Amino acid sequence: MHENKPLNNINVIDLTNVLSGPFATLLLGDLGANIIKVEKPEGDDSRQFGPFINKKSCYFISLNRGKKSIVLNLKDKRDKKIFAQLLSKSDVLIENYRPKTLKSLGFSWKRISKEFPKLVYAKISGFGETGPMSDLPAYDMVVQAMGGLMSITGSSKKNLSRVGTSIGDITAGLFCVSGILSALYKREKTKKGSKIDISMLDCQVAILENAISRCSVSNKSPEPLGTDHPSISPFGAFKTFDGKIIIAAGNDKIFKKLCSVMSRDDIFMNKDFSDNNKRNKNIKNLRLEIESTLKKKKSKFWIDLFRSSEIPCSTIDSIKKVMKNPQLIKRNMIQDYIESSSHTLKVSGNPIKFNGIKEKKIAKKAPNLNQDREKILKEFGIS
Amino acid sequence: MHENKPLNNINVIDLTNVLSGPFATLLLGDLGANIIKVEKPEGDDSRQFGPFINKKSCYFISLNRGKKSIVLNLKDKRDKKIFAQLLSKSDVLIENYRPKTLKSLGFSWKRISKEFPKLVYAKISGFGETGPMSDLPAYDMVVQAMGGLMSITGSSKKNLSRVGTSIGDITAGLFCVSGILSALYKREKTKKGSKIDISMLDCQVAILENAISRCSVSNKSPEPLGTDHPSISPFGAFKTFDGKIIIAAGNDKIFKKLCSVMSRDDIFMNKDFSDNNKRNKNIKNLRLEIESTLKKKKSKFWIDLFRSSEIPCSTIDSIKKVMKNPQLIKRNMIQDYIESSSHTLKVSGNPIKFNGIKEKKIAKKAPNLNQDREKILKEFGIS
Repeated sequence: MHENKPLNNINVIDLTNVLSGPFATLLLGDLGANIIKVEKPEGDDSRQFGPFINKKSCYFISLNRGKKSIVLNLKDKRDKKIFAQLLSKSDVLIENYRPKTLKSLGFSWKRISKEFPKLVYAKISGFGETGPMSDLPAYDMVVQAMGGLMSITGSSKKNLSRVGTSIGDITAGLFCVSGILSALYKREKTKKGSKIDISMLDCQVAILENAISRCSVSNKSPEPLGTDHPSISPFGAFKTFDGKIIIAAGNDKIFKKLCSVMSRDDIFMNKDFSDNNKRNKNIKNLRLEIESTLKKKKSKFWIDLFRSSEIPCSTIDSIKKVMKNPQLIKRNMIQDYIESSSHTLKVSGNPIKFNGIKEKKIAKKAPNLNQDREKILKEFGIS
Repeated sequence: MHENKPLNNINVIDLTNVLSGPFATLLLGDLGANIIKVEKPEGDDSRQFGPFINKKSCYFISLNRGKKSIVLNLKDKRDKKIFAQLLSKSDVLIENYRPKTLKSLGFSWKRISKEFPKLVYAKISGFGETGPMSDLPAYDMVVQAMGGLMSITGSSKKNLSRVGTSIGDITAGLFCVSGILSALYKREKTKKGSKIDISMLDCQVAILENAISRCSVSNKSPEPLGTDHPSISPFGAFKTFDGKIIIAAGNDKIFKKLCSVMSRDDIFMNKDFSDNNKRNKNIKNLRLEIESTLKKKKSKFWIDLFRSSEIPCSTIDSIKKVMKNPQLIKRNMIQDYIESSSHTLKVSGNPIKFNGIKEKKIAKKAPNLNQDREKILKEFGIS
């Protein structure tokens, strides 16, 4: 059913490494594009990240399933020529080198836009191609800290935390995909390619929700609040007999129902908790009241009860539990990956679900280094 | 310079509320689309979220700049007709109701695909339109917990944290935009619209990086690590004389340089730290060694020194500091928003930077409720 995927006629030349770019091309591949991963002779750095199955990196697998691999040494004259030939028959070039690197290899935007005028060229870097910090090196951890996200994540100002996944890379990849797809759409009208310059730091600021506007009005930086929400209560983690559960009472109606099914109408009637602003201000006392009841029963009891009353709630699920979530399994978000009959693992699926596109249950394989060389050269008519 | 934005001929009918959908249409608007925000008579719920300037919600402003507003009561027969007339001349419909709500209002996919065959219809919900949990209510907090992200974010298993921004909504918005844009591209070929079903929970699983693959191989759920990275060291926050800084030594070369510029070649020579695996295993001792030197000088000293040596590093910046970051200002990521001459604030800009598109320094205004009614009806030829 590959035929009806939206990008099934699109060739992507993918020079990216490790996470931000490979995450972007994973999504483009899931949308049907043909991803040609052009690797340096030693391969994508993440091929070295453990754990391994059958000598293949699980990290690499999870980000590169379904792509093709060819090795090119872009410092080599002959390989430069092959690279240019690939570009001449492709729609998208994406790379996540530091700014100026690709230019120094002979592929400036000036040259690309002249020789391959229909090519969409996207690059992701730590700080973007312009501005005083453009040349500095960055990793996800750096932009999480510099972009402000770390300052509002954690249990207190002294206990800040990074987001448990490399959200700086991942959001840069997602914005980059939007840039590429909009440029492809534009190309249908103008017959011309575009250049897209994505900065990981910019993307961190773009996902701060209302933190910037709030701070600019109050002149006070928002602070980390553990599992609590800055402006809605009760909306966070609460202790039960055997753990913690999330309750998200997003409005008065849900709060009233919550109190009622807990048989604690007295909480609802308490004037300290009569509207969201008061509840937010008095969250400490409100938490004590709610937990005094929740602690009498196990989490499962409360989740079952709250779900049957349509109160938004959840256990705080470990990755193991996530992998068994029936909703996620039903929606093909936990896929089987078979490296060989004795080496299998699970990978996450594609969250963009289209009508009329039947998804496969088994994930496509991630390539061995250079495995598709001959096939790619033949496909592109390169001898 | 609006003319050359990629989506400048695209009309989006935006039925969305609060965050996930409005974030998606904010990005589509930044890419040039005409966003018609169709609000219920009482308006988007976030119009009630404080703080306010000139009686307008700063939360609403930060997510709805540049959109147009019209009020329609979709339970009303006359307004249903207007809505259908809007759809007939539009390219995209996006909504984030619970599943079945739009159908119950008379706009099923069956009807939409028949009457408006070129329309791209995207919906975002907590759990998606299929699967056993489809009908359950969800908020960001619920999917952060159920999707596993909360279980790996925080300083310890006992001190888990939500991501300080509503990443469940935001990533759903981002994946939704990719779905919409790829469907618009597909439509150029097939002349047909698509339906896109986005689940916030699915999207949380899609951003877990390698957590699923790692867990499926080790059979152990990854755990929260504060500011540390699960597989790279030193890569996290380290104490200085007056605070903490982030150091991200992503490979041996950077680690060697780090030790050298700290005049601590002894750390590099120590066999306990001779490769990344050993450093990762011995991170506690490594941290003590590094901090024993860092604590002698202030953060600024070390940041200046490390930057001049191209060692990836950062202070952990508050939102106030983010707003003054010269790189972000230069790249127009911190924009002025002028509600009136005496009411201004800052909002974040668009991180997708295209060649040849000159960005405005001042953000477009967010609409008052129903302010564009007459203009929209006229534009769409509705009397």
